[in-house]
Amino acid sequence: MTLGEIAQTRLSEIASCSATGAGVTRLPFTPEHRLALNHIRHWMTAAGLEVHMDAAATLVGRLEGPVGSKTLLIGSHQDSVPNGGRYDGIMGVLLPCLALEKLHSDGETLPFSVEILAFADEEGVRFPTALLGPRALAGTYDNSVLDLADQDGVTLRAAITEFGEDPPQLDRLARNPADILGYLETHIEQGPVLETHDAPLGVVTGICGIERNNVRFVGRTGHAGTVPMADRRDALVAASRLIASVADTAKATNTVRATVGAISVQPNAVNAIPETADFPLEVRSISDEARQDFTDQIRVLGAQIARDSGLAFEMEQTYVQPAVACDIDLSETLAGAVQHAGFPLITLPSGATHDASAMSDLCPIAMLFVRCKHGLSHRPDEHANAADMNAAVDAIAGFLASLAASGSTRNHHEPPL
Amino acid sequence: MTLGEIAQTRLSEIASCSATGAGVTRLPFTPEHRLALNHIRHWMTAAGLEVHMDAAATLVGRLEGPVGSKTLLIGSHQDSVPNGGRYDGIMGVLLPCLALEKLHSDGETLPFSVEILAFADEEGVRFPTALLGPRALAGTYDNSVLDLADQDGVTLRAAITEFGEDPPQLDRLARNPADILGYLETHIEQGPVLETHDAPLGVVTGICGIERNNVRFVGRTGHAGTVPMADRRDALVAASRLIASVADTAKATNTVRATVGAISVQPNAVNAIPETADFPLEVRSISDEARQDFTDQIRVLGAQIARDSGLAFEMEQTYVQPAVACDIDLSETLAGAVQHAGFPLITLPSGATHDASAMSDLCPIAMLFVRCKHGLSHRPDEHANAADMNAAVDAIAGFLASLAASGSTRNHHEPPL
Repeated sequence: MTLGEIAQTRLSEIASCSATGAGVTRLPFTPEHRLALNHIRHWMTAAGLEVHMDAAATLVGRLEGPVGSKTLLIGSHQDSVPNGGRYDGIMGVLLPCLALEKLHSDGETLPFSVEILAFADEEGVRFPTALLGPRALAGTYDNSVLDLADQDGVTLRAAITEFGEDPPQLDRLARNPADILGYLETHIEQGPVLETHDAPLGVVTGICGIERNNVRFVGRTGHAGTVPMADRRDALVAASRLIASVADTAKATNTVRATVGAISVQPNAVNAIPETADFPLEVRSISDEARQDFTDQIRVLGAQIARDSGLAFEMEQTYVQPAVACDIDLSETLAGAVQHAGFPLITLPSGATHDASAMSDLCPIAMLFVRCKHGLSHRPDEHANAADMNAAVDAIAGFLASLAASGSTRNHHEPPL
Repeated sequence: MTLGEIAQTRLSEIASCSATGAGVTRLPFTPEHRLALNHIRHWMTAAGLEVHMDAAATLVGRLEGPVGSKTLLIGSHQDSVPNGGRYDGIMGVLLPCLALEKLHSDGETLPFSVEILAFADEEGVRFPTALLGPRALAGTYDNSVLDLADQDGVTLRAAITEFGEDPPQLDRLARNPADILGYLETHIEQGPVLETHDAPLGVVTGICGIERNNVRFVGRTGHAGTVPMADRRDALVAASRLIASVADTAKATNTVRATVGAISVQPNAVNAIPETADFPLEVRSISDEARQDFTDQIRVLGAQIARDSGLAFEMEQTYVQPAVACDIDLSETLAGAVQHAGFPLITLPSGATHDASAMSDLCPIAMLFVRCKHGLSHRPDEHANAADMNAAVDAIAGFLASLAASGSTRNHHEPPL
């Protein structure tokens, strides 16, 4: 049985830690979460780690290195979206455990400490916030989020307290950046790029910045039969011209992904010319400059379309999150490990946010993507092959071995041996 | 006080026959309808007409002509949409009454009979059917519509029976086409064309045919961050391309009015690529051939757009109603009357359906449009000027006088005198 096959079996087992319904539904600080931690604890102890749960309900498995060595953090999240898949998040906790098992059985010892982290809440489904675990480690969490409540009125503070043993003392969790080598996250791609390139693994160049805008055209309604075409100020026609241009312009940039995922018109009747059309425009890019340039272009274009047809146009940014670059040195080490394991090197940006986004405030980050069947994620039929997971275990083990060989793993405030 | 000013006063009075709320809400076979009939009865008797209500709840005012003469039908509907205006429909009952008063005071007698008709239900708001009154006259009504119920479960049969005195004997209402000179309807334009041309009146060339289609693009959803632009099958982008083309293509034809008044996408989330986009496409034209050509063009274009982006495309016709041409002779007589009254001749199609559509199955039809402020109709602020209504009364009276002078108003089966 390969380590990839073992991974498949273990992910199938832990998938049963789920609320009822199709696929996996495992929200943070729930009985399902607690059951899942039993599985993860077994994985960690089998890899020789010493396990504890921290005050943010992150399960931490530590492999102690030599005195004075830095710590490499590796991990991902245990939680899923409702009716999600078996891989998103949890696979990034399991595969590094298997990589440590493999190194151990190969007789390798590491000149640094390793911690595998199973964060509680990355999806942000239960509470209107997420990433408390990595933010606590980075010292960037905002205390006020503890007062946010789920839809049953349970605050995040109450949920964590009931889940752990004590009131959460999150401010004690912040790590000293000088002690940390970096953070590695393995994740299912959630997109089709690796499948398109027929490659099991990808090295992530960075995590895209995201902005959201509310776009609105205001025209004039009227009877579909009585207003001549030339007299119309049709908000949906104007919106349609802009939405088509959003797709064409983004395609031309090669670095921007832009999506209009929803739209609403008023009065919304078969025989009434639309007076208003409202839609959200989401723009993501690994380059903040390219993203801003794109949004500026669309704003100019929207205003032009509105002017041409006598409509009003508004575009308001409602959310922005800058891009996070992966660390060049760590990513090169990871890329070398992927190639050394016998796989082609594919580099790609991550369009989705990950725990690594928050960890980048603490330390250099690197991310390994595993091929995703048909690019489908957040669904019960989300799938990664055992062979691809085996490749990932090889690459993670190779990455650890390369890092061990690089000699730069001791704490800077210790003199080199 | 001009007849136009009298019209304005009377329309203001009958506007109080309304359910509560803004504007006029007068549905058929209601207490408001009954109250309105009292006003209309007064208008008709003041014009020298003998009044009765027929089995379809049409109020009929008859001016008897010489023995053996044909009958000219004139009318429109008493009902309104919910929160509608004071002019739509009811103005076309009042103005011909005033025209007959005017002819009477001018000492004119007509060599034919005239009936002014106040149809009960043209808007089709209360029941999922409409035009029972004119269809009964034309002998084209479908008995099964009597079983259709309003939202309170009251059938049309029960509503008419309760409103009248006997169970409705609609089959006795059909007229003999040989007895009918034609049908004239006066109506507020409900569009901006006359206002644009600075003209009070317009002669209608015909009533546009209408078709409705359900259009659907089916693509593939995916995460807005993880699917590269080139791999997308975005149903909203495809729909947007087609909707923009619908507007551009219709504008180029000059004879077609095409509207997409509503749209819905799934999954309809800010960060999910739309998998499906559904929208209704309504097409109207005075030329059935132009309408069908247009729809064929859009169908080809939609299929092409879908093919280009790997989507599926469906377009299904859900409703069709052919165009109705106005009678050339009657319309020329009407046009002469408009010009003789001192107004420019504007001819235009009607984009909306009217009682005249159903009456065209019985006899030649003609329609006179009255200028509509800002083109706004079916709203409380719908407005026609007293001066424009006065112009319409002049034109209707002139039309009747011209018809009287033309000598072709006797029944064909009577030998000419």
